Amino acid sequence: DSKLKIFSLNSNYPLAQEIAEIMGVELGKSSVKHFSDGEIQISIEESIRGCDVFIVQSTSAPVNEHLMELLIMVDAVKRASARTVNVVIPYYGYARQDRKAKAREPITAKLVANLLETAGATRVIVLDLHAPQIQGFFDILIDHLMAVPLLSEYFNNKLVGEDIVVVSPDHGGVTRARKMAERLKAPIAIIDKRRPKPNVAEVMNIVGNVEGKVCILIDDIIDTAGTITIGANALMEAGAKDVYACCSHPVLSGPAIERIENSAIKELVVTNTIQLSEEKLSPKIKQLSVANLMADAISRVYENKSVSTLFD
Amino acid sequence: DSKLKIFSLNSNYPLAQEIAEIMGVELGKSSVKHFSDGEIQISIEESIRGCDVFIVQSTSAPVNEHLMELLIMVDAVKRASARTVNVVIPYYGYARQDRKAKAREPITAKLVANLLETAGATRVIVLDLHAPQIQGFFDILIDHLMAVPLLSEYFNNKLVGEDIVVVSPDHGGVTRARKMAERLKAPIAIIDKRRPKPNVAEVMNIVGNVEGKVCILIDDIIDTAGTITIGANALMEAGAKDVYACCSHPVLSGPAIERIENSAIKELVVTNTIQLSEEKLSPKIKQLSVANLMADAISRVYENKSVSTLFD
Ligand SMILES: Nc1ncnc2c1ncn2[C@@H]1O[C@H](COP(=O)(O)O)[C@@H](O)[C@H]1O
Ligand SMILES: Nc1ncnc2c1ncn2[C@@H]1O[C@H](COP(=O)(O)O)[C@@H](O)[C@H]1O
Repeated sequence: DSKLKIFSLNSNYPLAQEIAEIMGVELGKSSVKHFSDGEIQISIEESIRGCDVFIVQSTSAPVNEHLMELLIMVDAVKRASARTVNVVIPYYGYARQDRKAKAREPITAKLVANLLETAGATRVIVLDLHAPQIQGFFDILIDHLMAVPLLSEYFNNKLVGEDIVVVSPDHGGVTRARKMAERLKAPIAIIDKRRPKPNVAEVMNIVGNVEGKVCILIDDIIDTAGTITIGANALMEAGAKDVYACCSHPVLSGPAIERIENSAIKELVVTNTIQLSEEKLSPKIKQLSVANLMADAISRVYENKSVSTLFD
Repeated sequence: DSKLKIFSLNSNYPLAQEIAEIMGVELGKSSVKHFSDGEIQISIEESIRGCDVFIVQSTSAPVNEHLMELLIMVDAVKRASARTVNVVIPYYGYARQDRKAKAREPITAKLVANLLETAGATRVIVLDLHAPQIQGFFDILIDHLMAVPLLSEYFNNKLVGEDIVVVSPDHGGVTRARKMAERLKAPIAIIDKRRPKPNVAEVMNIVGNVEGKVCILIDDIIDTAGTITIGANALMEAGAKDVYACCSHPVLSGPAIERIENSAIKELVVTNTIQLSEEKLSPKIKQLSVANLMADAISRVYENKSVSTLFD
């Protein structure tokens, strides 16, 4: 019987710590430091020979730093004779660069998948990839978890007795909104932005009935928060009673916090796939933990059970 | 006949520009920007279909940023149907992590080689790898240039009529010192640091005769400049007339500049494989350009001629 070891890198130590506590194990001893010139120096401070190793690392900002930490750690773990090298990537960075939208663009989401395999990863656990097709970028096994059940449960408890509608902030997110709506036994609506003519401001069409209702906007990533805050304000103008928003991955870069605080959004519910820095801890933001979900997936992979039941 | 295209990324634009000028071509049009969350956004703004593309990028600090720029650019160039994707890496970062010196260490220099191949590089041009064995980390063709001729020529002109000795700052660099000594028709000396007992200060033994002579200390990388400045001071104490120092790659991190300025080193001669920021432009530092060397290598690779004559 091979032993389970969980290591954390620098992107999200609290989440890794929580996962380890739930599983009743100690995090593996390792350190990620930098040489004087900024090169990453990793050392693993306990034997992992023959072990099933799980490395927890989100490739959130600073993305290149976190990705290289992960690749170098995978190399070190592989060379230390681990039996399997599983990478747990709660937030998979570069996921939006998943196709050539214009000529001569890279497909960085695919590149990252290849880099992880080349470094020596034998299996990957991710949560809410920006596009589910990214699963197909890997030749190794990949388990794809979803935050919709967690987010739905939160709103189910919070909004008892309310007349709810789940809203997709754009036409690309309707499938996700449908999934949450089913769990909340609520209808859906869609914000359909259109530009009537070039160089004319966009018009917000709301497809579906939101008047007098409590709206829940759902997206996978909230980055600069432009789409979601404009959407929230449009919903209020259309007569919504309240607007909540939620997402799996709180990237929250640039003007995001300011926009959220100045918007009609009553509460923004996110998960902890990305650790939020001090200045992002707005009182409007509620963070739910994916640690249970992740711990369950790690246990199932380790015990060679199906992870697919975690899908919905 | 396929066309030559040279692109520069962000690490060393002036060197790439100089190479292009020498070769009488314009640098290819491309841009490396960042999305709001810090992810790299590369776009190539001209057709490169069927071309022989050369991408100039040192993986100097910030190393992870520069390495990811390079990998993503290689991916983009490959997907844009270039005929060959040649990476020109004047300074190859992570080269000192080239073996497991302790248990459970990564071999990041090998990882980087694999990542470049995975991204789609078809050939590599480098200069003075920390260990020549790193050439063997690649399965694709690699051309290995040397700065010794350039550095030697400089001192040959500068120190006419002087009684010169070339000094290796440690026993690992003797081969390099020998190469320069041959070109300068000078003898060599070695600084042989020894710790007589544990927890006792190191003693500097100078092997060879330096009294009354002009010493040239040579190393491949000068990073924090501890070894080289301590060595220079030891040479002066041993009766040297003057001490010059030189290296291929001026990493110059942490206390390097301060140490050099406060040391016995009369002049430090480096190359421009790494672009020096404003605050590193000490009056003691002289920078020689490797642009001719690089341009020559690129021409030879492009014309399918031997690059081996560039070795010495
Ligand atoms: N980190 C990023 N931040 C903002 N936009 C991005 C980022 N990465 C990729 N994109 C762009 O987002 C688009 C994909 O978004 P989507 O249509 O939501 O899948 C592509 O056209 C990309 O150029
Ligand atoms: N960026 C770096 N800065 C300082 N030391 C490093 C760096 N990368 C690797 N090393 C260490 O330097 C040693 C190799 O140096 P050398 O003996 O000169 O080949 C190894 O033991 C590494 O742990």
